[in-house]
Amino acid sequence: MLSKNKIKYIQSLKDKKGRAEHGVFVAEGNKMVSELLQSMPCSLLVATSGFLRENIVPEVGELVEVTENELCKASFLKTPQQVLGIFVIPSCQSQNVDWDSSLSLMLDGIQDPGNLGTIIRLADWYGIEHIICSPDTADVYNPKVVQATMGALARVKVHYLDLPEWLANHTEIPVYGTFLDGENMYAQNLSSNGVVVMGNEGNGIRQEVAKYISRRLFIPTFPPGQKSSESLNVAVATAIVCAEFRRNLLIKML
Amino acid sequence: MLSKNKIKYIQSLKDKKGRAEHGVFVAEGNKMVSELLQSMPCSLLVATSGFLRENIVPEVGELVEVTENELCKASFLKTPQQVLGIFVIPSCQSQNVDWDSSLSLMLDGIQDPGNLGTIIRLADWYGIEHIICSPDTADVYNPKVVQATMGALARVKVHYLDLPEWLANHTEIPVYGTFLDGENMYAQNLSSNGVVVMGNEGNGIRQEVAKYISRRLFIPTFPPGQKSSESLNVAVATAIVCAEFRRNLLIKML
Repeated sequence: MLSKNKIKYIQSLKDKKGRAEHGVFVAEGNKMVSELLQSMPCSLLVATSGFLRENIVPEVGELVEVTENELCKASFLKTPQQVLGIFVIPSCQSQNVDWDSSLSLMLDGIQDPGNLGTIIRLADWYGIEHIICSPDTADVYNPKVVQATMGALARVKVHYLDLPEWLANHTEIPVYGTFLDGENMYAQNLSSNGVVVMGNEGNGIRQEVAKYISRRLFIPTFPPGQKSSESLNVAVATAIVCAEFRRNLLIKML
Repeated sequence: MLSKNKIKYIQSLKDKKGRAEHGVFVAEGNKMVSELLQSMPCSLLVATSGFLRENIVPEVGELVEVTENELCKASFLKTPQQVLGIFVIPSCQSQNVDWDSSLSLMLDGIQDPGNLGTIIRLADWYGIEHIICSPDTADVYNPKVVQATMGALARVKVHYLDLPEWLANHTEIPVYGTFLDGENMYAQNLSSNGVVVMGNEGNGIRQEVAKYISRRLFIPTFPPGQKSSESLNVAVATAIVCAEFRRNLLIKML
C-alpha cells in the first residue's frame, strides 16, 4: 500500500529541484528497473506481486508491494508497467577518469531528453563509459531521459562540467567535432582515444567550445554534393561517428 | 485574418481521418515550409507579414496573412514560428519505382512519430529515395513526423504497403535486416542496391517479414562480447546501417 506522502514524494522527483533535494531519481519498467537493481543502490522499490514473483530483488532501502492501480497513481508513464524504483544518484568523479586512453563523448547543450537518452544508450553499445555535458544540457535524471536510456545508465557515467574549462585543462587529448564544413570523416585517421563533441540541436557547437576542436569531421552525404537534408538528428549523427571510431578497431579484430 | 472555419479545418488535420478526408497535411516553421513550398503543391499558406517579406512565395492555392497571435490559434506547436502550410499529399506510385537499382528502406511497425521522422531525414542524407512502411507504421503526415523530418519529405517518398506481399513479388532484390543474432555487418559484402528492413521498437521484425530476409546483419558492439545495452534506438540503428552501405561507395570515390 502506497501512502499519500510517498506518492507526493515520488511526484516531486519529476522535477530537477526535487531530485537535487533528495539525491535520487525514478526509473520505471520491468527491464529497466531489473537492470538498474543489479548495479545501483535502490532506496525505494514499488512493485506489483507479479514483478516480485518473476524477479530476484536484491537488498533495497524499502520495498512496497502495490496493485497495478496503485502504481498508476505514482507513475510518470501513460501506461505504467509493474514496477517503479527510486535510485540513488551516483556521484561522478571526473578527476579519477583516465580520459587519455579511452573514447568519450562531450555534449554541448543537447536540449531534447529523448536525444540525450538515446545517446547514452548508444554510448553503452559502443563501450563509451563517460559523457561530459555542458550545464545546460538536459538533466540525465529527467524521467524522459532515464526511460530513453533503456538501462544504459547502469554503465555510462554522465558528468556536468564547464566545457571550455575542461578542454583547456586537457589539451593533450585529441578533440573531434562534427561540422558541415569539416573534413570527410572517411578520409581521416581516427584515434582510438579522444573526445567527440556534439552540439545543440539547432545551433550546433558553441564558439567557446569549437575553438578547442582540432579535428573537424564531416559525415558525408550520398551521393556527394546532391541536395539533401541540411543536417542529421544529433543522436543519429553521434551514432554514425561513434560507429566509425569503433569500426576501425573492430575491423582489425576480424 | 483567419476565420473560425479555417482554424477548425486546420485543427481537423491533426488526425489521420481529417487528413485522409481532405488529402492534405500540415507543415510548420520557416525552414520547413520554405523547403516544401519549392517542391510540393500548397493549398493554403498562413503566414505573418514578416515571413512574406523575407521569403519568395511561389503560387499557392490560397494565402492568408495573419498576426503571430492568430497563427498561435491554428498552430499545433507550443511555440509557433511565422508560417503554417497546408500541402497536398502526393500519390505514391510504388509500381513505377526502379527498386532493383537503388537502396531502399522498409519499416515494419515503427510506432514512434519522432523515430519515423528522424529516419526519413537520414534517408534523405543518404540519398535513399523510397521507404516502404507496413500499414501499422506511424503515419508520415502526422504533424510530429512532419516536424521531425525537417523538410526531407520534399525528397523522400513513403509508401504504405503489405510488406510480405511486396517481398514475395520482389524476390530478385537483396533483402537485409538487422538481428541480434545476425552476422557481423563489417564482415559482409553489402550490395549497392537492395532493401534494408528495420523492425518495431519493442518487438523487432515480424516473422512473416523476417522469412524473406536472406542477409541478416548485426551491428557489432564494442568491445565485442562485453555487457551493454540490449539494443539500439531504431533510428540510430537505421543510421548506422545506412552509413555502412553508403561508406562502401563513398570510400571508392576518395
